Amino acid sequence: MSEIKTVSVAVVGATGYSGAELLRLILMHPGMELVCVTSRQAEGTLLTDNFPRFRGAKKFEGLRFVTPEIDTIAASGAECAFLALPHGVASQFAGPLLEKGLRVIDLSADFRLNDTETYAEYYGDGHPAPELLGEGIYGLPEIKAGPIRDARLVASPGCYPTSVIVPLVPLLRRGLLSLVGISVASMSGTSGAGKSLKTDYLFCEVNESIRAYGAPKHRHVGEIEQELTEAAGQAVRISFVPHLMPVTAGICTTIFADLKEGVSREQIAEAFAQDYGASPFVRILGEGVFPDTKNVTRTNFLDLGWVVDPRLNRLILMSTEDNLGKGASSQAVQSFNLMFDFPEETGLLNY
Amino acid sequence: MSEIKTVSVAVVGATGYSGAELLRLILMHPGMELVCVTSRQAEGTLLTDNFPRFRGAKKFEGLRFVTPEIDTIAASGAECAFLALPHGVASQFAGPLLEKGLRVIDLSADFRLNDTETYAEYYGDGHPAPELLGEGIYGLPEIKAGPIRDARLVASPGCYPTSVIVPLVPLLRRGLLSLVGISVASMSGTSGAGKSLKTDYLFCEVNESIRAYGAPKHRHVGEIEQELTEAAGQAVRISFVPHLMPVTAGICTTIFADLKEGVSREQIAEAFAQDYGASPFVRILGEGVFPDTKNVTRTNFLDLGWVVDPRLNRLILMSTEDNLGKGASSQAVQSFNLMFDFPEETGLLNY
Amino acid sequence: MSEIKTVSVAVVGATGYSGAELLRLILMHPGMELVCVTSRQAEGTLLTDNFPRFRGAKKFEGLRFVTPEIDTIAASGAECAFLALPHGVASQFAGPLLEKGLRVIDLSADFRLNDTETYAEYYGDGHPAPELLGEGIYGLPEIKAGPIRDARLVASPGCYPTSVIVPLVPLLRRGLLSLVGISVASMSGTSGAGKSLKTDYLFCEVNESIRAYGAPKHRHVGEIEQELTEAAGQAVRISFVPHLMPVTAGICTTIFADLKEGVSREQIAEAFAQDYGASPFVRILGEGVFPDTKNVTRTNFLDLGWVVDPRLNRLILMSTEDNLGKGASSQAVQSFNLMFDFPEETGLLNY
Amino acid sequence: MSEIKTVSVAVVGATGYSGAELLRLILMHPGMELVCVTSRQAEGTLLTDNFPRFRGAKKFEGLRFVTPEIDTIAASGAECAFLALPHGVASQFAGPLLEKGLRVIDLSADFRLNDTETYAEYYGDGHPAPELLGEGIYGLPEIKAGPIRDARLVASPGCYPTSVIVPLVPLLRRGLLSLVGISVASMSGTSGAGKSLKTDYLFCEVNESIRAYGAPKHRHVGEIEQELTEAAGQAVRISFVPHLMPVTAGICTTIFADLKEGVSREQIAEAFAQDYGASPFVRILGEGVFPDTKNVTRTNFLDLGWVVDPRLNRLILMSTEDNLGKGASSQAVQSFNLMFDFPEETGLLNY
Repeated sequence: MSEIKTVSVAVVGATGYSGAELLRLILMHPGMELVCVTSRQAEGTLLTDNFPRFRGAKKFEGLRFVTPEIDTIAASGAECAFLALPHGVASQFAGPLLEKGLRVIDLSADFRLNDTETYAEYYGDGHPAPELLGEGIYGLPEIKAGPIRDARLVASPGCYPTSVIVPLVPLLRRGLLSLVGISVASMSGTSGAGKSLKTDYLFCEVNESIRAYGAPKHRHVGEIEQELTEAAGQAVRISFVPHLMPVTAGICTTIFADLKEGVSREQIAEAFAQDYGASPFVRILGEGVFPDTKNVTRTNFLDLGWVVDPRLNRLILMSTEDNLGKGASSQAVQSFNLMFDFPEETGLLNY
Repeated sequence: MSEIKTVSVAVVGATGYSGAELLRLILMHPGMELVCVTSRQAEGTLLTDNFPRFRGAKKFEGLRFVTPEIDTIAASGAECAFLALPHGVASQFAGPLLEKGLRVIDLSADFRLNDTETYAEYYGDGHPAPELLGEGIYGLPEIKAGPIRDARLVASPGCYPTSVIVPLVPLLRRGLLSLVGISVASMSGTSGAGKSLKTDYLFCEVNESIRAYGAPKHRHVGEIEQELTEAAGQAVRISFVPHLMPVTAGICTTIFADLKEGVSREQIAEAFAQDYGASPFVRILGEGVFPDTKNVTRTNFLDLGWVVDPRLNRLILMSTEDNLGKGASSQAVQSFNLMFDFPEETGLLNY
Repeated sequence: MSEIKTVSVAVVGATGYSGAELLRLILMHPGMELVCVTSRQAEGTLLTDNFPRFRGAKKFEGLRFVTPEIDTIAASGAECAFLALPHGVASQFAGPLLEKGLRVIDLSADFRLNDTETYAEYYGDGHPAPELLGEGIYGLPEIKAGPIRDARLVASPGCYPTSVIVPLVPLLRRGLLSLVGISVASMSGTSGAGKSLKTDYLFCEVNESIRAYGAPKHRHVGEIEQELTEAAGQAVRISFVPHLMPVTAGICTTIFADLKEGVSREQIAEAFAQDYGASPFVRILGEGVFPDTKNVTRTNFLDLGWVVDPRLNRLILMSTEDNLGKGASSQAVQSFNLMFDFPEETGLLNY
Repeated sequence: MSEIKTVSVAVVGATGYSGAELLRLILMHPGMELVCVTSRQAEGTLLTDNFPRFRGAKKFEGLRFVTPEIDTIAASGAECAFLALPHGVASQFAGPLLEKGLRVIDLSADFRLNDTETYAEYYGDGHPAPELLGEGIYGLPEIKAGPIRDARLVASPGCYPTSVIVPLVPLLRRGLLSLVGISVASMSGTSGAGKSLKTDYLFCEVNESIRAYGAPKHRHVGEIEQELTEAAGQAVRISFVPHLMPVTAGICTTIFADLKEGVSREQIAEAFAQDYGASPFVRILGEGVFPDTKNVTRTNFLDLGWVVDPRLNRLILMSTEDNLGKGASSQAVQSFNLMFDFPEETGLLNY
């Protein structure tokens, strides 16, 4: 297997759940070598001691956490840095790392929005690197593969947005949907909340519990509307209600949208076939088939099904994905594959 | 406590999950004596041997299952029969039991719809007792307390419908909502699927799984639209998507509806306060408060919260209830209390 | 119901899971009035605002948290104080409250051990009120009903100990077991870990996870051996391994013990029948019946089954209980009933 | 990667959970080609239609289920057949397939026991191919790597036995343990019960439930004692109590055993280091470290930790594995790797 090339990568901030999933994917990717991993709290300790699941992994042998400093990261020889940092922190690292010549894939929200105004609306004032907002490419390979290949800075999408944007874009591009009244109910596994120590995320609070939260203005609404608007060519606004689920991983999204008069079922199926038929990771289940999160956990797949309510001429789109996978880390690896000229599926065909 | 009167009751078909919950409520109700319990498969066996949870319960001591026959039920001295039978079977028992002078509370769908046409649309042809369709009172005490008090035959509502109808009725009555575009995403615990032996309901299929099902024409849509139409005074049609959840009990419902122009937040709060302020079982959490199923499981409460999305002038209503409780068995007991002149809360103030 | 007497009670430290369960039981107990509830963090706020599950409960209407001070508690008129405080803190309250004339039921471990030495071995030095160690009665009504009735200070047992002591005591009393080689594997729901904010207890850490912890010297070993030794009349030492389970509530305990030569199966059944046949809360399932936690959650029952392995002449005892119920709060209420001359079952016959 | 050789394999009986896991491993194994997959019920349908998780997998493209017949299987060109059939059925296929020249890896219990007597004791009379009992090699590579390499017929171990045998064998080989009083409590995820339609395995029965079952003579005791006896060189008998857990996958096993007098902690650690230090799949966590099922699910790892209770000179061994992985399908693939001269880890280093 000597001909497979290897790219050296760094993971900046790897102690949360999407960081762990990213490390797992790096471990199994034949073309990535992990040369640097940072964590302020875990500095100096072995990576494998912090993640019992990776115990014994030869690829990580001897690797220790270092403090997250630009010089250290650059000195590691990494050609690409994944930022798995909190919103507002990632943007402090992106610019300096780009200057050092690394390419950057940011899993935070810092570069997903195209303008500082929308950013401020959802995340507060003071974006630390507004000059880079324009440069960051929204890292959804199904709709932006070309720009991702050439990007220096990729802003990997949020978990909810991926599950909403992928189903809607082909229909909006073709003008098949009324832009009024699009409503989205999403259900996410608790790993989406990260590893933060809040009473709300204790086992006994989440177990046997179902509840909405964060409506009507969840932070992800900004990037969803930005991408939908781009696809439709005119402003799209949606209602979005996320729900916290007693599962570790998985997002199930249900979208209600009115079909424009005269739109046929064939047009819907055709739109998906045309846009995603060749995509290795969007699995078009078809009309009348209900996707299930348990079929996509620990994968990079997004499963897509739909039904039409003829009484109301309303379309109900349903998607499932792994919030830590296609909704975060494996999607970032998919962008990595494009950026570094690997086949798009490399290291990602897990089942 | 000798002055508390006692009503003799029968439970016809008690082996499923809502039957078990009904038995639990009878066990703790100070005014009910269980004189007859039927089951074809379990005939002759002790009730407490079939429900390990009730082992040792003095109130059930010596009680054995009998075969479900009209004469046997009537001979037991029961004044009221709860029917916890499959759809289509319940209606074969209701008429004969009424003739024998019992009052009947039916937990199935057989008498929820007012006309045979709608019944046939959702449940197939051949309602066995169409003449009773008109007599059955829809047993949702929050909107039909008066008729329930005098009813001979109560058709206790479905689990999903309760969670949808209660939040919408006060607003529809007052004309505060646009009737176009009402969309409902409901999430239900798996006990809602009953105890049927299907691969779909095995632990390993439901655990770590989230998925929609049954859309766009789940059987409950008929009774929901019937009651909403009555409240609005004109035809209301909704989109309804149920989801199966990896919890045992609980329903969480999220409703998207457009506010009519000019409707204020105060009007919404006021509508709920007027209609449910005195209701012992609707807990109005208020605007911006998100109900959680874990606060209502094993109770007869329906918790109600909402948010307004001012960008779209859209209202998002959220309700939670126990699908076996307020969505089935405790709601049936609430009707019983009204019918037999007990205080409405009797035996139902569990926390 | 006016003849039912009412006892005023205080709950000191009510914000954890066993505190919440205790409040729920007080809410449903016909003979308890809650006159004082303390919490440092929640001081001044309404009890019902802190426990969404109790929203609307008339019995708690207007009740606000006060700071935990002896004078305040005494001034409330409480005749009995439940201490739901951390180990080491409870003992600071017990003495002063006893002096004020209250009777005290302590849910912590502070008074469970009879001597300071053993206390120091398991909980560290410096018991704040060693003079009370002798006075505290181990509050396991199945074996100490008499002393509990007259007690001023009851030390309510730990969750694991209850599940181990109840099955073993009748057999040890009668000398049916070898005292060598008793091994115990216990599995507990996560509410047993309390509401403490530790990564270990986050949903994503506990869900889909099974693991042992705390062996070989879990703190509960001390009180288990103390009570077993008392029953056997000679020193008993056990191996005890607790396991953390992905359920909210419930303990399942499996005990391995060698039968003394010549002991018959009838002797085992008889021992249980004699000691617990009249007990309202020990349900003897019998030989060959496997207890299940789901039949005892939210109750005060302990279900007991066993099998004999004739190849090894070894007895396997199995018990289930709710760790927050019979393992903590409902057991405390059972002691309360004895102390204040209520029928033992009062408020506790939940199913 | 053209130099990697490929072995054609058949899977006989692939519709259960361990069959599905086996298919998943074949999908990701670089040296296996699936040429035949059988199922009576699913005959003629596409494999990918029966397993939504594998939808889109190119390796399975076009592959349809055939009826399980010897000639069909042999004609497929398979060099190796995996039998994922019920006990008693597998043995009808093994002999004929061996005669056709295939090598066979049986996941059932049919060839695990060395003599018909013990087989009859645990599985009933009438083993269909007693002449093969001697030939089947117990497929636990950690203790039988040599014989497995040369085997025509491998009897892949049961899930519980793997978790019990691996920890005990090194200590028994060295005579470090008393052979009296070994007690084992095992906890298994529900996928271990297979996909059988029994009420006991419905979501609502397993969720929020913990219970023992199958004691004292679970079928796996036979093979456990056979292997322990071989290691000890004299008869070993154990007590074994399995418990059903509300998780999909994973086994956690806790073993109580008395150390022989004078055995030091170093001897224990050394025994494991010597026997498993070079093993790619036994991860020796060490003394005082508690293994957790969530670190081994979907892997072929067995994690091993232990504690010593000096008060009793008793050793407590703890192991975790995936019941469908190291406890079934990935272990079978590990044997396959040995049999067909692949590096032992091939296709199995998942994390």
